[in-house]
Amino acid sequence: MTVSEGGHGNSAAGAQVSSPTAAGSLPSFQEMWRELRPIGRHPDSHGYRRYAWTGADAECRAWFRGQAEARGLAYELDRNGNQWAWLGDPAAGDAVVTGSHLDSVPDGGAFDGPLGVVSSFAALDELRARQATFTRPLAIVNFGDEEGARFGLACVGSRLTAGQLTAEQAHRLTDGDGVTLPRAMEAAGYDPDAIGPDPERLARIGAFVELHVEQGRALDLGGDRVGIASAIWPHGRWRFDFRGEANHAGTTRLGDRRDPMLSYAETVLAARREAELAGAVATFGKIVVEPNGVNAIPSLVRGWLDSRAADQASLDTVVGGVEQAAREYAEAHGVDLAVVRESFTPVVEFDHALRDELARILGRDADLKVPVLGTGAGHDAGILSGTIPTAMLFVRNPTGVSHSPAEYAAEDDCVAGVSALADVLEGLACT
Amino acid sequence: MTVSEGGHGNSAAGAQVSSPTAAGSLPSFQEMWRELRPIGRHPDSHGYRRYAWTGADAECRAWFRGQAEARGLAYELDRNGNQWAWLGDPAAGDAVVTGSHLDSVPDGGAFDGPLGVVSSFAALDELRARQATFTRPLAIVNFGDEEGARFGLACVGSRLTAGQLTAEQAHRLTDGDGVTLPRAMEAAGYDPDAIGPDPERLARIGAFVELHVEQGRALDLGGDRVGIASAIWPHGRWRFDFRGEANHAGTTRLGDRRDPMLSYAETVLAARREAELAGAVATFGKIVVEPNGVNAIPSLVRGWLDSRAADQASLDTVVGGVEQAAREYAEAHGVDLAVVRESFTPVVEFDHALRDELARILGRDADLKVPVLGTGAGHDAGILSGTIPTAMLFVRNPTGVSHSPAEYAAEDDCVAGVSALADVLEGLACT
Repeated sequence: MTVSEGGHGNSAAGAQVSSPTAAGSLPSFQEMWRELRPIGRHPDSHGYRRYAWTGADAECRAWFRGQAEARGLAYELDRNGNQWAWLGDPAAGDAVVTGSHLDSVPDGGAFDGPLGVVSSFAALDELRARQATFTRPLAIVNFGDEEGARFGLACVGSRLTAGQLTAEQAHRLTDGDGVTLPRAMEAAGYDPDAIGPDPERLARIGAFVELHVEQGRALDLGGDRVGIASAIWPHGRWRFDFRGEANHAGTTRLGDRRDPMLSYAETVLAARREAELAGAVATFGKIVVEPNGVNAIPSLVRGWLDSRAADQASLDTVVGGVEQAAREYAEAHGVDLAVVRESFTPVVEFDHALRDELARILGRDADLKVPVLGTGAGHDAGILSGTIPTAMLFVRNPTGVSHSPAEYAAEDDCVAGVSALADVLEGLACT
Repeated sequence: MTVSEGGHGNSAAGAQVSSPTAAGSLPSFQEMWRELRPIGRHPDSHGYRRYAWTGADAECRAWFRGQAEARGLAYELDRNGNQWAWLGDPAAGDAVVTGSHLDSVPDGGAFDGPLGVVSSFAALDELRARQATFTRPLAIVNFGDEEGARFGLACVGSRLTAGQLTAEQAHRLTDGDGVTLPRAMEAAGYDPDAIGPDPERLARIGAFVELHVEQGRALDLGGDRVGIASAIWPHGRWRFDFRGEANHAGTTRLGDRRDPMLSYAETVLAARREAELAGAVATFGKIVVEPNGVNAIPSLVRGWLDSRAADQASLDTVVGGVEQAAREYAEAHGVDLAVVRESFTPVVEFDHALRDELARILGRDADLKVPVLGTGAGHDAGILSGTIPTAMLFVRNPTGVSHSPAEYAAEDDCVAGVSALADVLEGLACT
């Protein structure tokens, strides 16, 4: 099948076209980074605060639309607030889609998300420079609210599209200031009544490939620039509510206390031990204490456990072990414990045929060794993998740091990522 | 010396007067409690939120003034926002002062503070019912901002008066919303430029006796209703800043982490061990975590240690032990640690002569065994003890719980406290 470019160049519908090279008039890879760099960057932390439906988010979205239009791509905003830039006719079907997200965690780094979007535009520029001929429609996507930093649920844009989050559930999402998702969307000029599943859109997509900075050091330890994802580890969040008795910190004898901070502290250490034993990860990164006074024994310590493992059995072992230990500690201190599983995502195995196809395409370059590796992080690609063939490319992260201002990828590794993505897109979408 | 009542009854200045009994027209002990009960009480927690210079504080202050005026006492607001109700001429000197405070910790109980103020008015009513003749001026005081719940420093009203806190230091105090103490005072209609030391006022006071609900179970364990304070344990607050590296909770291998939550948790448990060994108390009741995200390894965990012991050497042993353990844990996790002593109060030995005088007065009642006991809690009486002879009476607390909605004292124990306070005031201030 042959497709056209939308709205730009010699694009008679249905005619096979060469992709014009427009590099001279387009922002380079480096220029795109320079444009994105100041958006939502906190002057003190130097971290990014690009939260869904905020001003920083709107700036990122305007940047995306500008990039699409500068390249003559057909710009589209879908019902769930995801942005699309189309080369060729979307209705032709079997499209190849690439992209990622532009939002961030609180004080996040520059690469998690944006590397995939910037690399997608740069890869298209490279394909045009190669004068590639497209046989399938190609789209670049910016999924909305991937990190869930504002409303507490990750991948809202892709979950809605894939029907893994209903409009009713999304309408109940509320940020830390009590603003609901629909009110936030309205304030940003979007229609919250339109959100919901979008099966027609997904039915037009034949493959989705997301490039992402690695969140870990596996590539660096192996001396590789680029990798292919095998699977996303099963992962979840569990809330531990330790309820004791508020009392005066100066006058309550140790033996009379029901101090929930003690059982919380013991549980934090138990989580580390269980994760070490299982070769998994477990983290207590968020805590709420009441009354949180210097001279008050707390009445409540609420801690959230995030845990992930290579397989379901290991994850069950870790979380079960932590919960059992927490119950014993709580009982020893006269503290009540409630454990609630707030979210859970089973293991995601990326499409084996597409993964093998990527390995075959990238294997043509004898200089490039491309390992296949798992990851503990969730992604829009993981959400969509239940509906359409999906793959991921990782780019080396020399320190493994992410979700932090210190997140980093070297420019030559990023360029290698663009080249690999261009090869993959050419292999999938071009003659 | 003989003194008069101010502004009420047959009060020719300088004339020796009998105290009129006005019980018929005055709120009874039970009525005073009923009036105070709803002020600043949170409908969900049932705890009190009476913070300095808030609406609830203003209601408590209006109640105090009303009680003073109903009894014909001369009402006075001092430069530091403390309220005084005078029977007799303050300028006569050698006054006997009783009272406490009406503010609360977050979700505090009904008795910590108010029991001393209510009992003071009730004790005066009892002395008038006994037709006692006053030979020294008597005042009832409500010290402002005793708990420090809003601005983080306890006993602001008495500290300012005693010159233990300068106006410049007080002007820099800021609440959790960024409101400074002077702005909060202004908003409540007070003049923040007037605050400062008040030595003339203290020079007029010959003795201060504060009645307080016991914060502990010593009286209950001994089967006693009322006790006399020997000393306030040395106590302080230390801030522990554990700084690690923010990173992705799902993708960062355990060995690559610099997770400050782990060293915090180990330090919490070390504090408990050290306190147990020394027969002291140690508490981590307040914590601040950054970025405090479920899927983020924290960059910062800031915890506050509150510790108190019977003597300075024991306290030094506890805090030194906790700090050394924390440094070892931090080093093991690649975490930086800074420890800052935010406040410290040395041991307060209450005036021995006044304490013995109270024991002598209360010893007249053969049915009342009045033990002498130390306490781990700070009080305005502790602040003033450096300047004027000061004593404290404690009333039984059957559970030992305080700084909590569950704080409780039985009515007959409270009545025994009023009677004991009346005896003490009669013994000190009447012929």
